[in-house]
Amino acid sequence: MHYFDIVVVGAGLAGSTAARVVAEKGKKVLVVEQHRHIAGHCHDAKNEAGITIHTYGPHIFHTNNKKVWDFVQQFSDFNCYQHHVLSYAEGRFIPFPIHVDTINEIFGTHIPASEVSNFLAEQVQSSKFTNPPRTFRDAIVAQVGEKLYELFFENYTRKQWGRDPSLLSAEVAARIPVRANRDGRYFSDPYQGIPSRGYTAMVQAMLEHPNISVLLGANWFELKNGLNAPLTIFTGELDKFFDFKHGKLEYRSLKLVLKTFNKEHYQSASVINYPNDYDWTRITEYKYFLDEQSPHTTVCFEYPKPEGEPYYIVMTKENIARREHYMREVETLEKTGRWLFLGRLAEYKYYNMDQVIAAALQKVGTI
Amino acid sequence: MHYFDIVVVGAGLAGSTAARVVAEKGKKVLVVEQHRHIAGHCHDAKNEAGITIHTYGPHIFHTNNKKVWDFVQQFSDFNCYQHHVLSYAEGRFIPFPIHVDTINEIFGTHIPASEVSNFLAEQVQSSKFTNPPRTFRDAIVAQVGEKLYELFFENYTRKQWGRDPSLLSAEVAARIPVRANRDGRYFSDPYQGIPSRGYTAMVQAMLEHPNISVLLGANWFELKNGLNAPLTIFTGELDKFFDFKHGKLEYRSLKLVLKTFNKEHYQSASVINYPNDYDWTRITEYKYFLDEQSPHTTVCFEYPKPEGEPYYIVMTKENIARREHYMREVETLEKTGRWLFLGRLAEYKYYNMDQVIAAALQKVGTI
Repeated sequence: MHYFDIVVVGAGLAGSTAARVVAEKGKKVLVVEQHRHIAGHCHDAKNEAGITIHTYGPHIFHTNNKKVWDFVQQFSDFNCYQHHVLSYAEGRFIPFPIHVDTINEIFGTHIPASEVSNFLAEQVQSSKFTNPPRTFRDAIVAQVGEKLYELFFENYTRKQWGRDPSLLSAEVAARIPVRANRDGRYFSDPYQGIPSRGYTAMVQAMLEHPNISVLLGANWFELKNGLNAPLTIFTGELDKFFDFKHGKLEYRSLKLVLKTFNKEHYQSASVINYPNDYDWTRITEYKYFLDEQSPHTTVCFEYPKPEGEPYYIVMTKENIARREHYMREVETLEKTGRWLFLGRLAEYKYYNMDQVIAAALQKVGTI
Repeated sequence: MHYFDIVVVGAGLAGSTAARVVAEKGKKVLVVEQHRHIAGHCHDAKNEAGITIHTYGPHIFHTNNKKVWDFVQQFSDFNCYQHHVLSYAEGRFIPFPIHVDTINEIFGTHIPASEVSNFLAEQVQSSKFTNPPRTFRDAIVAQVGEKLYELFFENYTRKQWGRDPSLLSAEVAARIPVRANRDGRYFSDPYQGIPSRGYTAMVQAMLEHPNISVLLGANWFELKNGLNAPLTIFTGELDKFFDFKHGKLEYRSLKLVLKTFNKEHYQSASVINYPNDYDWTRITEYKYFLDEQSPHTTVCFEYPKPEGEPYYIVMTKENIARREHYMREVETLEKTGRWLFLGRLAEYKYYNMDQVIAAALQKVGTI
């Protein structure tokens, strides 16, 4: 099968973006996908109740990258969905991330937004932690103090990562947003929304190009010897590519439990975090994302687990070291011009959706 | 790419049934489909109004073949939809096919069902036609007489086939149902219905087998030299396979025009024929098929046309002769054990959905 110039392994956002970019440059592309659906982890589909379910858990698109925003606009309209999250703490639903309303709810104060920074500084001053922070715990306490850390982060992190937060590196905490204003949105990026007909339809439109063929339900590892393309863009699991020669890279996975109820709404926000109570970390009510009208509603309970579909890379010393070994081999392969490694799995790197598209545009743009 | 034991060309009902049967026998199967969707002409999808649209015009499943019914049940539930058709004639909507209610409506009579046969015999006796019938016209007039022929068949056939009915062979009329009872259903087969989640979902389930990979958006004619499978099951166009060496086989095609209205219903039946008025042959209101609830409704106007997506084979002498030439070549190829030709396009044969599945089960069952 020498018909294709480029084989892309994986039809997720990384692979589909890459395929589209090279197809538009006139290359014949074969996308090989092991699942029987495209769009990878942002796959969605309507369920029996007519509600669009994100198959692998909630995905909210947000970016500050105009290039990425312009790119996705070609393939889908986006609605104006703005993400708001509540966190269930002390028996109440509290606005999250931490901003002025969160503080006034928790401490029973009535401070204005302009006082948030001072208030948090006082909280931090009366807390115990190592400075500079070395662990996840210390990194959060250094930002918001012990009380808010314990209410919103400590147990959530324990559930999410299956580890005591004092054992996690401080870097994991870098993405925690704290707002010294009244903006209660979860993301403050200038471009936000959900594709109006869903992510799958958006990715389908990306792949709708005369130069792109898509092979579903096929194991590339079994086929690769027969494909023999001049360039392979690999977006699958890094360790598996190298037959685990430097050891297995760990992923955190999720058990997702869907329930449909015969009522308009189950909860008052699309996502509610449960840091301290119950075994799930959060509940997502999907109909909010596309403002879908139905007498029914479907919600998703998320239970983190150590094995299964690979969701989140685990930033332990061992995994970071293993990644380094693999990435040195990747570098050598990429220098031949016959290989490119791209995306969350192939780079063993935490990417948001917009970041993986940005990386694909940048890396593949030079081919 | 010697990885696959069998290549199936086309992911319609013929190809998908064949793929499933051989996959269950342990063969590794690659299904190559030129479109970017599976299910061929029975493809369906929900539109913006949440109504399931049959992309290539209305498809109603009906069969008297228990084997076929048992086969499809494995992949989908079916609802209990019973097809009823109205025909617009003399400014009124008349039940069709012809049964006792049709006759009483048209002739202003009040005869019971038991009188239908006698009544039609009288109609036939007072009509002019050649016996035995040689043309489509004569074949119908011989069954129902001139008046009913002119009202329901003459102009419909002219629109449908773009030819005067006296030029069409009598065989085309063989499938005309006339009922000497009160049964107003369009089909009287013991097994009838629509797949509850649509035809695409049913075919998707057929193709969901670990031994099946599906390649979408790929032109098999361009890929075939690289595939080199021990057996190819071809369900594409017969004349194209042989590079049109014996001439082009003619197909009748359709222009389908979809319109969505902001009301519960557009018409009082799923399908209404327009034999004499307007340029369309019929209007289908899709929500009836799956009893879909919506404040909107989507209808489809069908305009027959001579070129485009191949819908119906055209049974002229020329086409029948050309088919014979091609089928002799097919026979030779099939004897090698490396080729199998299957389905409406590859056999240039009128097949209902159940008939193509029956043919696939029978032909592929012996592999």
